[in-house]
Amino acid sequence: MAKSPEMEHPVKAIGLAATDPSGILSPFKFSRRATGEHDVQFKILYCGICHSDLHIIKNDWGTTQYPVVPGHEINGVVTEVGKMVNKFKVGDKVAVGCLVGSCRECDLCTKDLENYCSKQIITFGSKDVDGTTTYGGYSDIMVVNEHFVLRWPENFPMDAGAPLVCAGITTYSPLRHYGLDKTGLHIGVVGLGGLGHMALKFAKAFGSKVTVISSSPNKRKDAIEKLGADAFLFSRNQQELQAAVGTLDGIIDTVSAAHSLADLLSLLKTDGKLIMVGVPEKPLELPVFPLLVQGRKVVAGSAIGGLKETQEMLDFAAKHNVLPDVELITVDYVNTAMERLKKADVKYRFVIDVGNTI
Amino acid sequence: MAKSPEMEHPVKAIGLAATDPSGILSPFKFSRRATGEHDVQFKILYCGICHSDLHIIKNDWGTTQYPVVPGHEINGVVTEVGKMVNKFKVGDKVAVGCLVGSCRECDLCTKDLENYCSKQIITFGSKDVDGTTTYGGYSDIMVVNEHFVLRWPENFPMDAGAPLVCAGITTYSPLRHYGLDKTGLHIGVVGLGGLGHMALKFAKAFGSKVTVISSSPNKRKDAIEKLGADAFLFSRNQQELQAAVGTLDGIIDTVSAAHSLADLLSLLKTDGKLIMVGVPEKPLELPVFPLLVQGRKVVAGSAIGGLKETQEMLDFAAKHNVLPDVELITVDYVNTAMERLKKADVKYRFVIDVGNTI
Repeated sequence: MAKSPEMEHPVKAIGLAATDPSGILSPFKFSRRATGEHDVQFKILYCGICHSDLHIIKNDWGTTQYPVVPGHEINGVVTEVGKMVNKFKVGDKVAVGCLVGSCRECDLCTKDLENYCSKQIITFGSKDVDGTTTYGGYSDIMVVNEHFVLRWPENFPMDAGAPLVCAGITTYSPLRHYGLDKTGLHIGVVGLGGLGHMALKFAKAFGSKVTVISSSPNKRKDAIEKLGADAFLFSRNQQELQAAVGTLDGIIDTVSAAHSLADLLSLLKTDGKLIMVGVPEKPLELPVFPLLVQGRKVVAGSAIGGLKETQEMLDFAAKHNVLPDVELITVDYVNTAMERLKKADVKYRFVIDVGNTI
Repeated sequence: MAKSPEMEHPVKAIGLAATDPSGILSPFKFSRRATGEHDVQFKILYCGICHSDLHIIKNDWGTTQYPVVPGHEINGVVTEVGKMVNKFKVGDKVAVGCLVGSCRECDLCTKDLENYCSKQIITFGSKDVDGTTTYGGYSDIMVVNEHFVLRWPENFPMDAGAPLVCAGITTYSPLRHYGLDKTGLHIGVVGLGGLGHMALKFAKAFGSKVTVISSSPNKRKDAIEKLGADAFLFSRNQQELQAAVGTLDGIIDTVSAAHSLADLLSLLKTDGKLIMVGVPEKPLELPVFPLLVQGRKVVAGSAIGGLKETQEMLDFAAKHNVLPDVELITVDYVNTAMERLKKADVKYRFVIDVGNTI
C-alpha cells in the first residue's frame, strides 16, 4: 500500500493544498525527503501566486492530481545542505522557480535549457525521481537538488522579489533570446498583469522604449505614470492601432485569452518579432500574408528559462533594481487572493508571507 | 485622355495579356519606355510561369487590373544601356525577378531589403514611376532600371535557370536568413511543387538532410529517387508523422492551401523554425502551447529576396549547379500550360521559350 504524503519522507512539512476542483486551499500535512548528498533544505520565506496556480487548483487544464500544494515563486533561507553541496551553506538566501529536476544529460540540459527537457520535474504536481509527488511553495520547508536552487542576490528584497523566478524569467528570457534586449529598441507589451508588468520593467531596464497594449483602457494611467511605459494603446481602438502600425521591433504577448494576432503583427516593423509567453487554450488565428509580404515577421514562443539564465536574471534584476509590484498577504488570505486574482484584481502579483504566517 | 498601352512609350513591344477573369492569354501590343540613363533594355529569352501568374490572370485575389501581362522569372540579352549604366553592356546575359523598382532611400532599401520596401514596384500590374502600368516577361522586350537587373552567371543554362529569380530566391532567402543553411541540419520541405523542389535543392546544396512532407503520397518516389530527398512523410499518415516528431531543425512550408501547423510544429526540435513562403488565403490555426512548452518554436515568413541576395543566390546556384526541373514550352502552349498548372500537372516549373517562339 502506498504511504500517505505525511509518511513518505522523514521531514515533517505543512502547507496549503487544494483537494478538489473547488480549489479551496486548506492546511495540509505532508513530508519532505531527507536532505540528500546534492540537496539543499531551506525554510520558505515568501512565495508568489502565479496565475497558473489558480488554473491548477481549479483543474482548468484537466491534469490536476489532488491534493496539490501550489507555488513556484519561492525563496527562503538554507537550513541544511547535503555533504556534496558546496555552492550553498546554512543561512544562505536562495530561490526556487518552476523546476526542481530534469534529466541533466540531454542536449537541452547540457545547453542550460532544462526548461525544455522532456524529463523535467516541475515544482508541484509532478512525479519526483523517487516516484513521490512534488509539492510547491505554499509550505514551510523545501528540499531541492542544488542544481535547481538559485542564489538570492545580496541586499535584494525577498518579499517583492519572489515572483522574479517565474514571472521575471518568463519575460526576461524571450527579450534576451530573441535579441529584444538592445538599447533603443521599441518593445510592445500585450497585457498588463503579473507577466506584462515584468516585461515592461525588464524592457525599460534594457533601455527600450515601451508601449503597453491592453484591452483595459483604465490601465493607461498606471502603465505610464506608475510603471514608466512610454505609450499605451487600447487594443480595441483601431485608430490608435493604425497610428502605431510598423513601429515596434518586438512584442511580448502575455495574454492567455483569445485575441487578434493580425493587429499585433501589423504593429511590427519588418523583421519584428511577436513572442507569446501566455498560452491561450484554443489555437489563435494566424494570418500568413502579414508574415511574408508585410515584412518577414516572426511569431514565436518562450517558456520560463533555464537555471543559468534564471540566475543571470536575478543578478540583473538586483543590479538594475527591477522588482515586481506586489501585494504581500498572509497565509490565511490566500483563498481571498485567489478570488481576487480570478478578477484580475491585483497590482500586480500577490506574494504570500509564508515565513511569518504559516 | 490617357494614351493606350501601345502609344505610351516609343519602343514597340508585344506580349501575351489576359484581358478578363477568364485568364485566357492572347497577343497584346503595347510599348516600353525609351532606355533612360540608368536603364537596361533587353530582349527576353525565357520566362518561367509562377503559380501567382495564374492567380493574377484569373483575378483570384481580386486585385487584378486588366489587361495584364504576367511573368516575373525573366532572363534575356542586353540590347541597349543608358549612358550612366556601367554595370552592364550590350550582349550581357541578364535576369529580372519580381521587382523593377523601390524607393531606394528607406531603411529597408538601404539594407538591401527592397523586397520589403513599401514603395516597391512589382514587375507586372504595378504603377511605374511615370504612372504607366508595368508589364511582365511574357513579352519580347523589357526596359528596367539597372539596380533591378541581375547578372546571369557565365555558362549557366538560361532556360532551366529562369525560375530561380522567383522560386529560387523565395526558398534560398529564408534558408539563409533564418540560419537554416548550415551543413548537417535536417530540413523539412512542405509541398513538392515549383517552390518545394527548389527548397529541397538549395537545402541539399547547403549540406542538409532533407525530408519532404507532402499530401501526395505518389510524390515519394520522385522526391527521393529523382530529387535526392533523404526521406518523405505523407502528411496524412499520423504514424509517419509521429515517428518524426522533434527531428527537424527547420521547415520551409510552400503550401498555399489550408493545412495543419500543429503537425508541422511537432516535427521541429527545440528552437526549430517553421518558415512560411506560401500564402494561404485564410488564416491558419496556430496552437500556442507547442510554441512555448514544447520547445521555443518559431513560425515566420519570408517573401522573395532583395537584389543583392538574389544575385548571390544566382551565383551560388551556378556554382553548385542548382537548377529547377522545367518543362520548356512555346508561347502558343501557354494557355494549356495554365490549365495543367491549375491541376499541379507539371514537374516542376513551366518555362516559356519566349525568344524563339514569340
